[in-house]
Parts: sequence; structure tokens; C-alpha cells
Amino acid sequence: MTLLFCSNIDNAGLWRDALGRRLPGLPMRVWPDVGDPADIDMALVWQPPQGVFAGLSNLRLVMSLGAGVETLLRDPTLPDVPLVRMVSDSLSDDMAGFVALQVLRWHRHSDAFDAAQKAGVWQWLPYRPAREVTIGLLGLGELGSAAARVLTTLGYRVLGWSRSPKHLAGVESLAGPDGLAAMLPQCDQLVCLLPLTADTQGILDRRLFDRLPAGAVLINAGRGAHLNEADLLDALDRGHLAGASLDVFSEEPLPAGHPFWGHPRVRVSPHSAAATHPSQAVEQVVATVTAFREGRPLANVIDRGRGY
Amino acid sequence: MTLLFCSNIDNAGLWRDALGRRLPGLPMRVWPDVGDPADIDMALVWQPPQGVFAGLSNLRLVMSLGAGVETLLRDPTLPDVPLVRMVSDSLSDDMAGFVALQVLRWHRHSDAFDAAQKAGVWQWLPYRPAREVTIGLLGLGELGSAAARVLTTLGYRVLGWSRSPKHLAGVESLAGPDGLAAMLPQCDQLVCLLPLTADTQGILDRRLFDRLPAGAVLINAGRGAHLNEADLLDALDRGHLAGASLDVFSEEPLPAGHPFWGHPRVRVSPHSAAATHPSQAVEQVVATVTAFREGRPLANVIDRGRGY
Repeated sequence: MTLLFCSNIDNAGLWRDALGRRLPGLPMRVWPDVGDPADIDMALVWQPPQGVFAGLSNLRLVMSLGAGVETLLRDPTLPDVPLVRMVSDSLSDDMAGFVALQVLRWHRHSDAFDAAQKAGVWQWLPYRPAREVTIGLLGLGELGSAAARVLTTLGYRVLGWSRSPKHLAGVESLAGPDGLAAMLPQCDQLVCLLPLTADTQGILDRRLFDRLPAGAVLINAGRGAHLNEADLLDALDRGHLAGASLDVFSEEPLPAGHPFWGHPRVRVSPHSAAATHPSQAVEQVVATVTAFREGRPLANVIDRGRGY
Repeated sequence: MTLLFCSNIDNAGLWRDALGRRLPGLPMRVWPDVGDPADIDMALVWQPPQGVFAGLSNLRLVMSLGAGVETLLRDPTLPDVPLVRMVSDSLSDDMAGFVALQVLRWHRHSDAFDAAQKAGVWQWLPYRPAREVTIGLLGLGELGSAAARVLTTLGYRVLGWSRSPKHLAGVESLAGPDGLAAMLPQCDQLVCLLPLTADTQGILDRRLFDRLPAGAVLINAGRGAHLNEADLLDALDRGHLAGASLDVFSEEPLPAGHPFWGHPRVRVSPHSAAATHPSQAVEQVVATVTAFREGRPLANVIDRGRGY
């Protein structure tokens, strides 16, 4: 049993330490030092280069270091073995924290207060009570549910939309095209936490923006390909949308000179909404590897038909 | 029965509308147009001028538009009648939102990401998982409890300190000098939501800062008089504390030229952490007025011995 680790952002040394403590005796190779490809039966990866799985003839399990696996599913060398996505309480905390931070910054005039401080001006600005502010959540999976819990605890009115209706405390759950049509006109802020699939690609477009009320805010922490960037710039510049917080982009890193960088009503963050922290996420990897070794059913396996 | 309204920040028109809908027939006078002082039996006030109660010989009830009443208690004309402070879910939401916003901004490198955007640089910065970050809360009353609920939902480890031990889900509750001594060295961020009393005045001083770990952050949304401002500047400038978010000050508005305005690691907001929104807070006023009229016991009456 040998694990192949491959990520351009996760720290292999921290993962080696964390896994070594919990699964002593599990050999780990860090790509591109694969050694004998026939040794590898498990892989732990984040956005590996296309073709990484070629020649791994004994690969029986692929684990993603992130929640979204759309790039893995596009790799023709990905074998037909269980593909497990990252689900951890810590990943959910991160995402819920990012969503809360962005929602609160827009709702509570954070930038205006910062500007007033810079100018040395004591300027009180009225804001609405949270229970009179409606947040729409696109996606009510692990991350969306965590965001919903935090937003309802903050007092916001939360509407949630997903492929199939969900039951979450304090959340009005909607589904399907009719549900989306009913939700959008009510949203002061709209948060995208959808998985990227053929159905959701490009969902954040002009048609959707036009169904939001004037002055609404968009927060995208799903994937760059959910968003039509030109449509967003247009909606911002004609004054229909008040602002956007974007953590993901059609091209990452966001290219130099892209209009989002300098846009006064766009907040750019570098795909940092949620991170896979080895100290926390190791538990899920240990549970998956242990279940795999013992031939027990695996949790969080991707349904390749749905794409998530 | 006539209500006297007196506030330099709350909107008398909105309150007249809100109360008029819920308590039709209740006459309301807006200070300084008191009319016949003998008519007034109730007052709804926020930081009224000293002496406002002089001559109101039939005053039987004073309601505060805010949670803190220390300025009212200093007014020698305040009669010995029930003094009710503002407690509303909406006020608690506001405060919990302010605390979450500030905690998340420091924890999640919000300013650094903003600066990177300004420079057009894609710069990922590591952050710790929330469950490895400890937030200390000074004060576990209505507002502190609401903040604790949001912070635990965000995944933070929360320690709380109050005069008497409390029982809050997910919060390690400490009390007394020994509890404070045990809590401080563990806090990555310390949040003050205490009432202002003789015991708590000046509590945020050099002695307390020195018991926090190096690199800790202070958030004060209690009262300006909780903080020794010179001690804070010293702790920031010698690098012991990493930053501070301050919503309240010893003098408000914060005077021009005060070193907090331009300090790179101080965030100033204009006493905006929580607001009394008439649409939400009217319910508590209606409940108090109704109980008062019917001779029933009043909720949220200040204990003048304790001062809150």
C-alpha cells in the first residue's frame, strides 16, 4: 500500500507528518517522485496535472484535497475507481467564515467606515437589522449548509436553492427553475456555493442578474466557470448590482490587467475562501484509507453522473 | 399617559410611526417640546442631557434606547423609578455581527487581501482553522451570549468571562480574577462586551494586555471607559498586540488628531456595532409599556446596585 501525494498548493511535509502520526507505516510518495508506479494504490491530490494517473496500474482509490472535483473528472487518465472529495468540519468552517465575512462587509458598510477612518471622519451610517436582510444561497451541500447555519445565527433571513429540496433549520429551501425564479427577486445578497456541473456552468449570467433586485450583491465562492465575468461587469457598471465578492475566477491566478483587480465595487480574493488544513483534514483521509483497507463502504464518494 | 422621547441619534419620526401603530392613543412628546411636564409619566431616552428629568414630577418609568445605561445612572435628576434597558434580538444580532466581522477580518487576513488586490497581486496567505483559534469574550450577558453563539457556529474555540459563571453551549465559562487569569494567556483575540461599572472601568489596561499572548488582537465594543487608550497604543507600538478594532472611545466622536485615526493597526468605527432599529425594538417598548400600564412586573430592569 503506497499513497501518491500531488498538489501545487498543499504542503506535502505537513501532510507527511500528519498522516505519519495517524497511519504509521503508510508509505507516501510526493509527485513527481512516483518511484515504481505499480506500488501506488491510493492518490491524494489537488488539481494534479492532466495525465497524472497514466501508468498507475494498481490505483484503486483517489482522494481529492478539495471539495470540488471537476478538473479531476475532466482527466481522461482518471481510472474508474472511487473518487472521494474532501468533506471536513474545518473546510465547512472556513467557507462559512468567508461567506459571513463578505455578507457582513457589504451589509455593515465596512468599506465606508474604513474610508471614513482614513479621512479622520466620524460618520455614522444607518444599516438595516439583519432580520430584514435576505440572503440567497445557491447550493445547500456541506458548505452551503454550514454557511446557512452561520447566516441564520447572525439573524439573516436565508433562502436556499439546490437541485433537490433540503430541510435545514431556519432556511426556506427551494429547488428547480421555479424555485430559483421565486428566490432571486427577494435577495439582497446572493451567494454561490454550487458544485460545477454542466447544469450550473455559467449560471451567474445577465439573465440571473436581471432577476435580482437593483442594488443586490453577488458573492461567488463556487467556481470561476459559474460566472459570466463580462455580464457581471456590465451589471455592476450599469448600476444594477451594487457589488461583488469573488474568490474564484475563470482563469486563476486572475491575470494581470483583468478589470476585476481595479474595480471599485469588486472584492478579489485569491481562492482563499476555504483551505484544507492538514491538522484538521487528516481525520477524513485516515477514515477513508482505513475503510478502504478494511473493504468497508467509503463516505463522500463522487457520483460521476451528477459530477459531485 | 404621555411618553417623552429624547435622543440625539434615534429618529423620533420613525419611533412615532412605530409606536403609533402598536400603541394608538399614546401621546408622545419629543424633547425639548415637553409641554406640561406633569403629563409625562414615561420616558424613552438615549444619552439625554444631564438634568432632563428635572420637573417631571409624575415620571414613573424610564426606558433606555440602548443596552448600556451608565450615563443615565450618573444623572442626579433620574428619579427612583424602574429603569429598563434595551434588550432586543435585533440589538443582539447587530452586536454578534459586528464581533464576527471584526474577528473574521483579523483571522482571515482581510486587510492583506484588500492590499494585494489594490496592488494587483494574487497572493495566497495561510490561515489557521477556526477550531485552532481561541476567542475570549469579556461579558456573557445578552450581547455576549449572542456573540458566543455566532463564534461557536463559526467553529472558533470560545472562552467567556463574566461576574458569575454562565452555562452556554460550546463556551467554556470562567468567572472572577482567577478565571480571567486562566483565560487571558489562551486568547488569540479578546472581545470586550462588558457593562461599564466601577469594577470594569479601565479593565483593558497594560496589566491585562501583558497577560495576553504576543500577537493577540483586542476588540472593544463595550464602552470607551473600559479601555486605557495610552496603554493600548503602547502595547501596539511595542509589538505586543497585533491590532485592535475599536467601536467606542473615551471621548465620542473620537477627536480629530487622535492617534487611533491614523494608526495602521487600529480599526475605528463610530459606535456603530449595534443600533436600536425602531422596526425591531418597538416590540420591547410595547411590551414594557403594556406591562407598566397593567401593573405587571417589568423585564430588563436595571439593578442600580450592580449598575446594569
